[in-house]
Amino acid sequence: MTKVIIALDIMGGDRGPHVFSSAVTKILSEYPNVHIVLCATQLSANEILSKVPSHLHAQLSIEACEQVVDMQMKPAVALRKMKQSSMRRALDLVSNQLAHGCVSAGNTGALMAMANYVLKTLNGISRPALVSSLPTRSDKKVLLLDLGASVNCDAENLLQYAVMGSVLKQSCDGLHAPKVALLNVGEEEIKGNSVIQHADALLKECKALQYVGYVEGDDIFAGEVDVVVTDGFTGNIALKASEGIAKLVVEELQVLTRETLLARLVSKLMLPLLKRLYQRMNPDQYNGASLIGLRGIVIKSHGNASAEACYYALKQAISEINLSVPDRIKTKIEKELLEH
Amino acid sequence: MTKVIIALDIMGGDRGPHVFSSAVTKILSEYPNVHIVLCATQLSANEILSKVPSHLHAQLSIEACEQVVDMQMKPAVALRKMKQSSMRRALDLVSNQLAHGCVSAGNTGALMAMANYVLKTLNGISRPALVSSLPTRSDKKVLLLDLGASVNCDAENLLQYAVMGSVLKQSCDGLHAPKVALLNVGEEEIKGNSVIQHADALLKECKALQYVGYVEGDDIFAGEVDVVVTDGFTGNIALKASEGIAKLVVEELQVLTRETLLARLVSKLMLPLLKRLYQRMNPDQYNGASLIGLRGIVIKSHGNASAEACYYALKQAISEINLSVPDRIKTKIEKELLEH
Repeated sequence: MTKVIIALDIMGGDRGPHVFSSAVTKILSEYPNVHIVLCATQLSANEILSKVPSHLHAQLSIEACEQVVDMQMKPAVALRKMKQSSMRRALDLVSNQLAHGCVSAGNTGALMAMANYVLKTLNGISRPALVSSLPTRSDKKVLLLDLGASVNCDAENLLQYAVMGSVLKQSCDGLHAPKVALLNVGEEEIKGNSVIQHADALLKECKALQYVGYVEGDDIFAGEVDVVVTDGFTGNIALKASEGIAKLVVEELQVLTRETLLARLVSKLMLPLLKRLYQRMNPDQYNGASLIGLRGIVIKSHGNASAEACYYALKQAISEINLSVPDRIKTKIEKELLEH
Repeated sequence: MTKVIIALDIMGGDRGPHVFSSAVTKILSEYPNVHIVLCATQLSANEILSKVPSHLHAQLSIEACEQVVDMQMKPAVALRKMKQSSMRRALDLVSNQLAHGCVSAGNTGALMAMANYVLKTLNGISRPALVSSLPTRSDKKVLLLDLGASVNCDAENLLQYAVMGSVLKQSCDGLHAPKVALLNVGEEEIKGNSVIQHADALLKECKALQYVGYVEGDDIFAGEVDVVVTDGFTGNIALKASEGIAKLVVEELQVLTRETLLARLVSKLMLPLLKRLYQRMNPDQYNGASLIGLRGIVIKSHGNASAEACYYALKQAISEINLSVPDRIKTKIEKELLEH
C-alpha cells in the first residue's frame, strides 16, 4: 500500500482542536498506510498526541505553527497576515508535495482564499467549487456544488462546476455517466435568469456530460440525478435550509415522543429507529466538503463539526487521494473544455 | 359582518378543478359572509356545484370562461392571448372591484404576469413578491419572500420586500415589530454579493423596520426572526429544497417503521404522532402563498395542491381581505420609503 500523507489543520474550528483526537485515532487504526501531519500550535498538538494511543504515534507528526486563523477573520486579512498559520502551513505542505491532501475545520472563506492562492486552480478552471454529498430519497447520494466557494458566477463557471462534479461522482462512486442537472426555479425552459439559460445552452453542447436539464429545489433530494450544479450563493442556502428543516423535523419528532405516556413508551421502542434516521440525515456524514478545481486536495470539515464529521472529512481526503481526483478533473477539462 | 367576495380560479391546477369542491364547501359553511365566484368553464363549474351542498349555493356564483391557461404556457403568451381565461377573469373581477381578492392554483408565471398587468403594483413598489409562512423550531411561523415572483432583483427591491413582509406579518400575526432578516451565505458582514451588501445598508437606514441583519439558510427555520428576505431565485430554491428534505425525512421514517416486526408494532402505536408531525410539516398548510405589492389581493395555491391546501389558500384570502393588507402596505410604503 502506498503511503498517504494528510496535512490536518486542527485549529480554528468552533469546537476547538480536541474534537479531532478520536477521529485521528480511528483513521490511523483503520489505515496503517496513512500518516497525518498535525498542523497546530505545539500546545494543541500535544493535547491530541496525549489522547491518541502511543502505538499510533509513528503515524503522526507535528508541524508546529504560531498563528491561528479565527472564524471571524476576513479572507483577505488571513491571506496577507497569516502565513505562519496552521491553515496556511497545511496548504503549503500540499503545495510542496510534502502531503497528498489537507483537511481543515477552520474559517471557510479564509481556507478558500488561501487554497486558491497557494494551490492555484487547474488549467481551464476559473474558480474552485465547494462540493458535498447529500442523502436522497433513493439509495444514491447526490453531489451538490457550488456550496459557497464563490457568491457570483457566470455560465462558464457553471459549466466547469458540471464537469468537475461529474468527474468527482464518477471517481468516488464508480458511476459511468453521472446524470448532471442545473438547479433552477422551474422545470420549464422559460424560467430562470440569463446566466442559467446561458449555462443550460453550454451544457447541452457539452457532449461529454450526461446533462439532463433543469431540476428544482425539491429534486435535489429526489435521487433521480447524480450531480446538481448551481452558484455558490444558492447552493449554500439550499444546503443550509435543508439542514435547518431536517433538524426541525428530528426535534419535532423528539418533542412529540416525549409528550404523552404512550408517546414516551413508543419513543423508547423506536429509539433505534430514530437513531438510524438521524444517522442517515446527519449532516456530519456528508459534511466533508471538497474544494475542487485546485491543483491539490482540500477538504473542509464543518466549523462546528463533531468527531464523527472530522472522521468523514479525513476519509474523504483519503478517498480523493487514492483516486487522484485533481488529475482526473485536469484530464477531463483538457479533453472537453480546452480543446474547443 | 361585511360580505367578502372571492374570485376563485379553479382551472389550470395539476390536479384539476375537483380538488376545490370540498374546500369551497368547508369555507362557505364556516364563513356565512363569504361569497365565492367560481371562475371556470361551465362544465367544471357545474362539477363543483354538483358536489357542494345545495343550501350553500346562494353563496356561489359562476363566471363562465372559455379559456384555460395551462401549466406549460409562457407568461407572455398567457398575457397576450388569454383574456377570456378563468385566471384573467378572476383578476379582472378584483380590478373592477367586483371581488375583494382572488385565489388561483394555476400557472404561477402566468398568474404573476397577469396580476402585475391587471392590478398594477402599489405606488413605490417596483415588483410584487410571492410570500408564504413556514414552520420553525419555535411556535412561531416565519414569512419567507420572494419565493419566485422575480428571478433578478436589486437592493431596492429587497428593501421593498422587507417592508411588505413586515407589514404582512404585523397584520396577520398582530406582531408589533416583526424581526426582519436578510438571507445570506454567512452571518459575518464580510460575506455576500454586492446586491446583498447594498440591501443590508439600506435596511440599516430604514428606521421603520426592526432589521436584525443577516441570517443563513438554516436560520430560516430557527424561529428567531419573523421575516426572511431574499431574491425570488434563492427563495424559491430554499423553499423547495426544504420541502424536498422534509418529504425525505417523513418517507424515511415510514420505511424504517415498516422494516421489522417491532418497527411495525411501534409504527402502529406512533401513527397518531407521525400524523401530527406530518400535519405540522405539511406544505399544504403553508402553501397559500400571497402575491403582495399589488393593488389587490392575489393568493397562489400550489399547482398540485390538495383539497386541504385549497382551503388554506381561501382562508388566507379571507384574512388578507379582512385586514386590508394592500392598504396597509401602501400606507407603510408611503410613510417610510416615498417620503425620503
